Amino acid sequence: MKYTAHINIMPLKELLDPQGKAVSSSLHNLGLTQVQEVRIGKHITLTLDASSKDEAGNMVQDACKKLLANQVMEAFDYTLVEG
Amino acid sequence: MKYTAHINIMPLKELLDPQGKAVSSSLHNLGLTQVQEVRIGKHITLTLDASSKDEAGNMVQDACKKLLANQVMEAFDYTLVEG
Repeated sequence: MKYTAHINIMPLKELLDPQGKAVSSSLHNLGLTQVQEVRIGKHITLTLDASSKDEAGNMVQDACKKLLANQVMEAFDYTLVEG
Repeated sequence: MKYTAHINIMPLKELLDPQGKAVSSSLHNLGLTQVQEVRIGKHITLTLDASSKDEAGNMVQDACKKLLANQVMEAFDYTLVEG
């Protein structure tokens, strides 16, 4: 069966996010002064073949841990959708 | 009232995503051969003050159009949560 995984990889809350800080001050300069905290991470969609949702979930976790996320600095979460 | 926006900015479907292609072949090399298409974009969370959900939505759209997304190559979508 085919699954689509939507993965978010974000910098850990405890860490500074300099890219987010820069975007935040740019938004202020553009007049959007009500914007407060900005944090920037990655969004990855991947499609995969698996026999069950559990197997698909394991594969996504594997992919995140082995390649996609740097767990020292980033946390990931994902949702799985059939099809 | 305080709102949190979760914004996804992804390369348009019609365009090649070389970063996604590279990640896809890396995942294959790591043994995750069931993975098919991979597409990589940005995930941005921002908190903002607005008097209503509509106003917050307008501000998020403004931010995406003016700064966050390059609409020639990227599409954005977002969800708004109170608090």
